[in-house]
Amino acid sequence: MATIKAVRYHRTGDPSQVAHLEKVAVDEPRPGEVRVRMLWAPVNPADLNMLEGKYGEARPLPDVPGNEGCGRVVSVGEGVDASWIGRLVLVDRMAWREEGNWAARDVVAVPSGIDARQACVLRVNPPTAWCLLHLFADLKPGGWIAQNAATSAVGRAVIEIAGAKGWKTLNIVRRPEAAAELGKLGADAVVVDGPEMADEASAILGGTKPQLGLNAVGGASATRLAGLLADGATLVTYGAMSKEALKIPNGFLIFSDLHFRGFWLTRWLRGASEETKGAVFAEIFRLAASGCFAPRVAREFSIAEVSQAVAQAAGGGGKVLLHLGD
Amino acid sequence: MATIKAVRYHRTGDPSQVAHLEKVAVDEPRPGEVRVRMLWAPVNPADLNMLEGKYGEARPLPDVPGNEGCGRVVSVGEGVDASWIGRLVLVDRMAWREEGNWAARDVVAVPSGIDARQACVLRVNPPTAWCLLHLFADLKPGGWIAQNAATSAVGRAVIEIAGAKGWKTLNIVRRPEAAAELGKLGADAVVVDGPEMADEASAILGGTKPQLGLNAVGGASATRLAGLLADGATLVTYGAMSKEALKIPNGFLIFSDLHFRGFWLTRWLRGASEETKGAVFAEIFRLAASGCFAPRVAREFSIAEVSQAVAQAAGGGGKVLLHLGD
Repeated sequence: MATIKAVRYHRTGDPSQVAHLEKVAVDEPRPGEVRVRMLWAPVNPADLNMLEGKYGEARPLPDVPGNEGCGRVVSVGEGVDASWIGRLVLVDRMAWREEGNWAARDVVAVPSGIDARQACVLRVNPPTAWCLLHLFADLKPGGWIAQNAATSAVGRAVIEIAGAKGWKTLNIVRRPEAAAELGKLGADAVVVDGPEMADEASAILGGTKPQLGLNAVGGASATRLAGLLADGATLVTYGAMSKEALKIPNGFLIFSDLHFRGFWLTRWLRGASEETKGAVFAEIFRLAASGCFAPRVAREFSIAEVSQAVAQAAGGGGKVLLHLGD
Repeated sequence: MATIKAVRYHRTGDPSQVAHLEKVAVDEPRPGEVRVRMLWAPVNPADLNMLEGKYGEARPLPDVPGNEGCGRVVSVGEGVDASWIGRLVLVDRMAWREEGNWAARDVVAVPSGIDARQACVLRVNPPTAWCLLHLFADLKPGGWIAQNAATSAVGRAVIEIAGAKGWKTLNIVRRPEAAAELGKLGADAVVVDGPEMADEASAILGGTKPQLGLNAVGGASATRLAGLLADGATLVTYGAMSKEALKIPNGFLIFSDLHFRGFWLTRWLRGASEETKGAVFAEIFRLAASGCFAPRVAREFSIAEVSQAVAQAAGGGGKVLLHLGD
């Protein structure tokens, strides 16, 4: 048994108030587990939601936050091949600590050529973008996708994956300044959200209408996004930045035959086969190695600075990374 | 060319103000058409919506209302078998007139044993109920469906078809007095809509949750109905009696994986094969012959009384029938 430092929260609330660095004991890895020395983790919106107590599932408290992170395997439990030792891996949940044990089947080995700081953001957002683009529509080459929250990590990954696939993206943003940045990632069109967005989008799309809409805002933004879509198209909700419910005019359902679905990566990972998950991560790593999914880092913090880190992340404006060890 | 009486509207607005009886000319049936002498037609909510200009598609004006009705074939155009003459048929649209021509492929022959007054309500609502129950979920014997607007013609048909299939219905109504009446149709449970509905429904369902929800109200009623459903279930919207948009909490989509769909019979009829449509109507007629889908008639009106008929229908409380001829 070793003593390490971990971020913990004993109650949910304001993220910068409830997350604290504490000393905790870590057991030796049990059969089937690997021991990972953590290196880097991002602060994602889902982490803030979990600290606030607004996530899909409540976890027993006290808990260690961190929905994803990257570390190196330093030892293995019974039944786990010793070749794991020394490998970089992505872990899910309880990532914000110096060390921890995870079931070997739940970690994802990172191929060589991708470093830990780059890899730490690859477990949640790029696979979410991959699923949003592949599981809800049968997009044809040159087909259009429309999304709001286009500057988010998922939104940026959507642009990059769609570009690699030959699908076009109409990106809805809050600030016109975002256009240049998204253009560099391969965005085909960028429009500013608001009452005039629909006219602007129609002028760009001509007669074409998107078969797929991706919504991480909710509220009026989601209604405007749905209004752009082709009859029979699907709007997938995977986030709720506005914290407002979707408002769906009945005609969108009855007469336009829009389909409204939701996506949550945690559920998908539980249900997908190992083969499918392996194929998705292989594609994510391949794109990452070619330069995709580079986090737009606002600032890095050490694990001891977790309160400042979550406060900055809550303010938006670029990815906050936690440096957990070397 | 003959002159007959038909209900027409030259502008949309208050149904009882815009629908008038007028004399119009009717051509001889063209190739592929049958001439039908109309007998009975119901006043459906969709008819009121069309007169109000709130339907899915605007029709060129002046137009003859009437989304369905039953009449008898009196002559046929070139290329149509003379054996059609004398048959009872269901027609779609422009039903509120003494006579008219319809494409033979668009009318549905009524089998013997079902009279015109009984048959005139079978073209729209029972097939809608059939589609709602069969196209959106793979219900198992004993599985539950939840629906609001349970006393509507579609709601009642849902209860009867589900009963014949061995599926159970949880029926949400506005007035507790409706329970006895729906019980006679085979309703398994009836609850009154409102803030306490969810607790009442849970007590009835025990641990079971419906895999399918059917919504014809919208607004808060739809949100409450969606809240009853199992993870991964589908809520189908086919009507909007409250005229209020659906309000969908983001968690219903992201975490509960509810699917929100819409259904419009007109679109389905356009896309379905002749074989499929034939099979659905055969089942509808079989159930009708065994006593299902009897209209709960509030009052009958002659075609000359169309203004009173639509005014009464707009007030709710049972089906209004128009007697178009003998």
